[in-house]
Amino acid sequence: MRIVVVGATGTIGRAVVEALSARHETIPVSHSRGEHQVDLASKESIERLFQAIGPFDALVSAAGQAAFKPLQDLTDEDFQLSLTNKLMGQVNLVRIGLHHINEGGSFTLTSGVLAREPMPGSAAVSLVNSALEGFAGAAALERPRNIRVNVVSPPWVSETLTAMGMDPAGGMPADQVAQAYVQSVEGQDSGKVIDARTFAPAANAAD
Amino acid sequence: MRIVVVGATGTIGRAVVEALSARHETIPVSHSRGEHQVDLASKESIERLFQAIGPFDALVSAAGQAAFKPLQDLTDEDFQLSLTNKLMGQVNLVRIGLHHINEGGSFTLTSGVLAREPMPGSAAVSLVNSALEGFAGAAALERPRNIRVNVVSPPWVSETLTAMGMDPAGGMPADQVAQAYVQSVEGQDSGKVIDARTFAPAANAAD
Repeated sequence: MRIVVVGATGTIGRAVVEALSARHETIPVSHSRGEHQVDLASKESIERLFQAIGPFDALVSAAGQAAFKPLQDLTDEDFQLSLTNKLMGQVNLVRIGLHHINEGGSFTLTSGVLAREPMPGSAAVSLVNSALEGFAGAAALERPRNIRVNVVSPPWVSETLTAMGMDPAGGMPADQVAQAYVQSVEGQDSGKVIDARTFAPAANAAD
Repeated sequence: MRIVVVGATGTIGRAVVEALSARHETIPVSHSRGEHQVDLASKESIERLFQAIGPFDALVSAAGQAAFKPLQDLTDEDFQLSLTNKLMGQVNLVRIGLHHINEGGSFTLTSGVLAREPMPGSAAVSLVNSALEGFAGAAALERPRNIRVNVVSPPWVSETLTAMGMDPAGGMPADQVAQAYVQSVEGQDSGKVIDARTFAPAANAAD
């Protein structure tokens, strides 16, 4: 398959590219590096991306910003960023991508554990992640040209925790998280929220 | 209690005002009728509303528009309306209302069955309803001054189905739906999605 990976230089995106590249042609896209770049907040930028790439069989998005702050510190701009970037950016990858994806293709978006397991400070992130899950579930029902839509919900990623100076044992390694995206792309599911934690190796599951 | 009901002239809002008025002082607010009016899409309008009303103990919102259309017919404006009105309108009632609500007060927002049971055409509505549920779950965790936040998820309402020329038996009467809002206001729950169908009388539950 020809697979577009948006957010390909991020922690999860890199692992997804690596996991998919063995069996597929991957087209990495990032915000500001490499051959293909996209600004998720701009529909024009997304349209230009698809024009440049041409037809494809699957798109994985592991990109998008949202603001993590206590409710009373979240500004209008924080909500606007979260809605425009991580939420509508990914929604627009589907809306515009539908005109470019091959029959039977798939879209895999990224929400996150804070949708269903909120914590103080996650009001905007939980809003966005839940919205993506609601959107994908509904969009998948319409199934134009047999196109599938799923959302992967990653937990905290070990490499991210390390970068934040926290204990990586509280997270899941990116290469394991990537398996949820592989499942979405290579499987037949549609309209699913795929919890990446269900792809932990058996040895870890027994921890 | 002094309870603000936004959307008070709508089918659900009317029933909520009626159910709460026996034991509480209700302050009905609607888009374009009566003493207190608000445009949910405008933060300034929401701010003016709270200035006019003064301190209150609970706010119920049964208001907000979102676009129901097949995914490929949803325009940028449809998404913008849905995000600005039903989603951020209700979020802003909480954000701004926090400065005006009494200690221990509560906010009750409205999502809808399409968050968790999508249907073709509900991509934008499911997005918005899910977003509201994610937001409320997270916002409730911060609990400033012991303030509670819940979301009621109403099913299709019988009176609405009748107005649409459909069989009202497929819905739930508004006065029964209103009981979920009463439970949110008078109970101690916070961070909950209250499915109004759980408040159906026992006789109906046996149907």
